[in-house]
Amino acid sequence: MPHQYRDDYEIYNLGDVVLQSGITLREAKLAYKTYGTLNADRSNAVVYPTWYSGRHWENEWLIGAGMGLDPAKYFIIVPNMLGNGLSSSPSNTPPPFNGPRFPDVTFYDQVECQHQLVTEHFGIERLAMVLGWSMGAAQTYQWGVSYPDMMGALLPFCGSSVTSPHNQVFIDSVAAAIKADTAWQSGWYEAQPQIGLRAASRVYAGWGFSQAFYWHQEWRRLGFSSLDDFLVGFWEGFFLDDRDANNLLTMLWTWKHGNVGNTPGFDGDTQAALRTISAPIIQMPGRTDLYFPPEDEQWASQFIHGSEVRVIPSIWGHFAGGGSNDEDTAFIDRGVKELLDGAA
Amino acid sequence: MPHQYRDDYEIYNLGDVVLQSGITLREAKLAYKTYGTLNADRSNAVVYPTWYSGRHWENEWLIGAGMGLDPAKYFIIVPNMLGNGLSSSPSNTPPPFNGPRFPDVTFYDQVECQHQLVTEHFGIERLAMVLGWSMGAAQTYQWGVSYPDMMGALLPFCGSSVTSPHNQVFIDSVAAAIKADTAWQSGWYEAQPQIGLRAASRVYAGWGFSQAFYWHQEWRRLGFSSLDDFLVGFWEGFFLDDRDANNLLTMLWTWKHGNVGNTPGFDGDTQAALRTISAPIIQMPGRTDLYFPPEDEQWASQFIHGSEVRVIPSIWGHFAGGGSNDEDTAFIDRGVKELLDGAA
Repeated sequence: MPHQYRDDYEIYNLGDVVLQSGITLREAKLAYKTYGTLNADRSNAVVYPTWYSGRHWENEWLIGAGMGLDPAKYFIIVPNMLGNGLSSSPSNTPPPFNGPRFPDVTFYDQVECQHQLVTEHFGIERLAMVLGWSMGAAQTYQWGVSYPDMMGALLPFCGSSVTSPHNQVFIDSVAAAIKADTAWQSGWYEAQPQIGLRAASRVYAGWGFSQAFYWHQEWRRLGFSSLDDFLVGFWEGFFLDDRDANNLLTMLWTWKHGNVGNTPGFDGDTQAALRTISAPIIQMPGRTDLYFPPEDEQWASQFIHGSEVRVIPSIWGHFAGGGSNDEDTAFIDRGVKELLDGAA
Repeated sequence: MPHQYRDDYEIYNLGDVVLQSGITLREAKLAYKTYGTLNADRSNAVVYPTWYSGRHWENEWLIGAGMGLDPAKYFIIVPNMLGNGLSSSPSNTPPPFNGPRFPDVTFYDQVECQHQLVTEHFGIERLAMVLGWSMGAAQTYQWGVSYPDMMGALLPFCGSSVTSPHNQVFIDSVAAAIKADTAWQSGWYEAQPQIGLRAASRVYAGWGFSQAFYWHQEWRRLGFSSLDDFLVGFWEGFFLDDRDANNLLTMLWTWKHGNVGNTPGFDGDTQAALRTISAPIIQMPGRTDLYFPPEDEQWASQFIHGSEVRVIPSIWGHFAGGGSNDEDTAFIDRGVKELLDGAA
């Protein structure tokens, strides 16, 4: 169900950020929230970036007393992705770079901004861990490639280091559904394009959860009374919950162009980039994830030293990593604990 | 690639057909084509219905000299589905039942019309086989349930006897993409809603072929030079190739409501309906089919006496049954031969 919108976050002023595209994002802002306390030697920090359309409060299911990400032990920083509506985004950037003129942002750009927050603002030189779901997993990989010497451990779940062609086809279909609505007006809408956003949510519905999830009516465990109740209540609600069409399209661009090989110095060579990851890592795809299938992570693992691919044995599809299914959350949390204990 | 539109078919006038919905389809027409010659004792007929948006000429890849469906041996009838633009459809029915007022048609209705052609027009009392891909598979199951005593053999491939909830979610997403285009005008368009049809084709693109198909760039074997070339050339072309938005929506309704349990007398009981199938049958799902996964066919097989589930070992996803990949075609053709030899 849609979460309540919250304003419990800090803003870090990044200044003018020159993006990979060549555009300068002026007076760029990173919205973030922290959990726990940075210890004296600044060794207990964890970065946990957000996912497609997610906000910091939608990461909190993996943070808590007794969990791997225990605020009593760790200082957990959740940076909101550029484009998610809290950090600099189409919806909150002043003209002329507002709306559909907001620049393209890569995962590399995202991590550069987060690195600035972590090092300049907090003075942290080493991270106990970076982890994330979905586009958060892509940022996790990017951290591993951009800053291998900073890294205690990596736990990307239900995501990838390079966006596969099939995933790109899926991404394009979500964008096409939004844009099919004439009310979208090439991004210069005055009100949100309702029909397009709702169509996009319906497209997403089939991809987000697995065939078996629907077959077994697992949505009942989320409190819905029928399939239609779930499709409108969960999915359409999801895409209307303070989301913005241009923000969603900006994040789709970031996702579609995900590739650690586009880190400066690698000239598009994904394999070479993956070979530079040196931190302990568990790659954690979901067994029934329809757009980040385990095979893609198996492929990447060939190029990552010492990597373990540990598949989440779930029928919740991509949303095995979404925090709504207790068994999956416990599975991921065990991985977090293992890596953090190993790093301690 | 889009096939050339053809007019090499016959029209059978069904008269007034009362559909399951209660609406009468007046002066209903069934467009069909036959291959081969009906033998003297009328024992060599095969019915091979079409699939979502398919026309008879798009079934011909499985018909030919030396193949199971050899016109030298069999009399193959390919009836075009109601709604496909050749048989009675939104696009060719006179007012007031034209366009979006075209009535809802079930698979049961489809088979009733085909049965009329087969028995009244051709005087055939027994069929050597019914087979079909996708929605053609659903019609195959329906034939098996509606007319068990007529049936020599059944070969449904990449389809199901009841449309699964996940498949319904996918179907709704295709419909939502078409309808998101304001030019759709609730079905009262004067020109085809281009943006909606193209968006729907992009949605379909991710579902039609598997993740591995895209990963390995199998589209190159279809003659395309890049992913974008394939997405526009194959997929957008597919949805623009003499297709019509209302026709596509009518067929989606048929598909979404597929359930042999809705045959009169079964009161929605899919399992009871499946138990009445008595013909030799091979259920042939594709290993990587994303909306008709093999698990669904395994489920159905529990209720079908003597059924064999034989999975097409392909990475072509749903299109393993589409006739474009020679290995898959050979696999399906072997099943056709086995069943026809057994029935002979």
